[in-house]
Amino acid sequence: MKYCIGIDLGGTTVKFGVFTYDGVLIQKKEIPTRKECGRDVIFDDIAAAVRKIVQENSLDLNNCLIGMGIAGPVEDTGRVEVSVNLGMSAYYPGIELSRLLDNIPVYVLNDANAAALGEMWKGGGRGHKNMILITLGTGVGSGVIIDGSVIHGTHGLGGEIGHIWVNPDEPDLCQCGGRGCLDQIASATGIVKYADRFLSRSDQFSTIRGIKNLSAKDVIDAAKSGDYLAMYTVNYCMEFLGKAIADITYVIDPEIILIGGGISKAGDFIREIIYDHYKNYPKIKKTLAPIELAQLGGDAGIYGAAFFARESSTSV
Amino acid sequence: MKYCIGIDLGGTTVKFGVFTYDGVLIQKKEIPTRKECGRDVIFDDIAAAVRKIVQENSLDLNNCLIGMGIAGPVEDTGRVEVSVNLGMSAYYPGIELSRLLDNIPVYVLNDANAAALGEMWKGGGRGHKNMILITLGTGVGSGVIIDGSVIHGTHGLGGEIGHIWVNPDEPDLCQCGGRGCLDQIASATGIVKYADRFLSRSDQFSTIRGIKNLSAKDVIDAAKSGDYLAMYTVNYCMEFLGKAIADITYVIDPEIILIGGGISKAGDFIREIIYDHYKNYPKIKKTLAPIELAQLGGDAGIYGAAFFARESSTSV
Repeated sequence: MKYCIGIDLGGTTVKFGVFTYDGVLIQKKEIPTRKECGRDVIFDDIAAAVRKIVQENSLDLNNCLIGMGIAGPVEDTGRVEVSVNLGMSAYYPGIELSRLLDNIPVYVLNDANAAALGEMWKGGGRGHKNMILITLGTGVGSGVIIDGSVIHGTHGLGGEIGHIWVNPDEPDLCQCGGRGCLDQIASATGIVKYADRFLSRSDQFSTIRGIKNLSAKDVIDAAKSGDYLAMYTVNYCMEFLGKAIADITYVIDPEIILIGGGISKAGDFIREIIYDHYKNYPKIKKTLAPIELAQLGGDAGIYGAAFFARESSTSV
Repeated sequence: MKYCIGIDLGGTTVKFGVFTYDGVLIQKKEIPTRKECGRDVIFDDIAAAVRKIVQENSLDLNNCLIGMGIAGPVEDTGRVEVSVNLGMSAYYPGIELSRLLDNIPVYVLNDANAAALGEMWKGGGRGHKNMILITLGTGVGSGVIIDGSVIHGTHGLGGEIGHIWVNPDEPDLCQCGGRGCLDQIASATGIVKYADRFLSRSDQFSTIRGIKNLSAKDVIDAAKSGDYLAMYTVNYCMEFLGKAIADITYVIDPEIILIGGGISKAGDFIREIIYDHYKNYPKIKKTLAPIELAQLGGDAGIYGAAFFARESSTSV
């Protein structure tokens, strides 16, 4: 029987998961991403970790299907033009890692897309083949799955909903060069920024006023406790997300929408706020898809990378 | 060799096309949709026309793959809850027609989705597997194709972009019950309505002032000839479409966007206006897909229905 190894190459850590072909997690591992040492060292580290995992579990490398999720758009050819978080550009991660692993194939995809596949395989999307996972973390990412396959997109930009333009009143520049992207408002970063703005514009009492290094969790927790300004902020930011979800559902009409990423830790509280905004937009109410929470947390990426390797490989 | 028969069941006429398996159009036919006589008569008419076509071309009905595009959302089960244009509701068009045709399978899909498949097969989308056809007619419709398959959607609403909410300033109600849908502004109906509004709000000279039963063609022709108010109207309406296209491309990242429907008869003039608006939105310029004109006109539906039958059938 084949085994699947899912790798999630992030800016801080590289996560590994070894799975049976059917998706039972056998071992999880994490190593630091030594960005300061450059790309070659990072890939050497990954290859060494894979070999160690293979050995520890008494597997045969040639019997393993390897998938890797990576920050940044992955082109059809497997080329990645730029991974901002990793400080890497114009490279072929699959070929590089394969070369270090006796040339066995390494299937590479975008990390948000991997997370979506992971949630479909073993998380909140089980039983669904048409879904979108929206990840609310430092930014807003998503993976769109149609008929069981993720939409990579022509330029590797499928599901890049963070840069949908939603707010004409945004004064700050987005990383992408635009102003008013969903990323700037419905992310953890956005919530903190808007809380700061609303605080500075009023003298109203708020439990989050004066908190040093205010976090999105602070704002959401205060909102949960009934703090008016915090609740106003969360509502303000999530309304833009609700509208974007409505637009997206008119394009792909999914069975289910999953919310993941750090902000989803606020659970049903945030899920219900998002749904309440979303449901106001489509007048064809039939189109409303349920919004649920993602279930795999930070492991979604390794699950999805493993699943992608399984699906991409023709040999079983 | 199998033959494909594509049927396009519209509110005014039913169109038929007989194709070789490879998509060469052998015969085209059209009959009126006798809406006033009710559903049974319409389906009897269609079945009789199919039998006549089969006979005229010396085909064997059992050797034909039959597809039918139909107005309204087609659910997974083949059920159509409502076809407003046809005055039909809660019916199974595929089963009804099949019953009248010796029970050979009839593959049914939404008409906008059929048109998109047709354009991919033999029209402006040839050579592409990831595209969207946007139809600007009485309303705004679309068909979204990912990896060669059209997105029907969970509730048959895939590609229903006409009801994306774009204009908070819209005073009138949309058919869907909303206000400010793309349908109300970027369609032929929308162009005429906005031209009327802009005319009534100013005294400025315009060649379209006073035209009885003003049409979208009148407005676009005047815009082409340099009429300021007409050009202002077309620009105003198409900017909303450009923004919507940008949002859509961040979800599905297509290879190409096709513009079809009555308004697309204005050719490169309208295509360039749409593209000029669209290209202002995404700041990640790599994501920009070319906008081209659809090529099959009113025949896209029969091509696409035939193609859909071909793809849905497993027997060759």
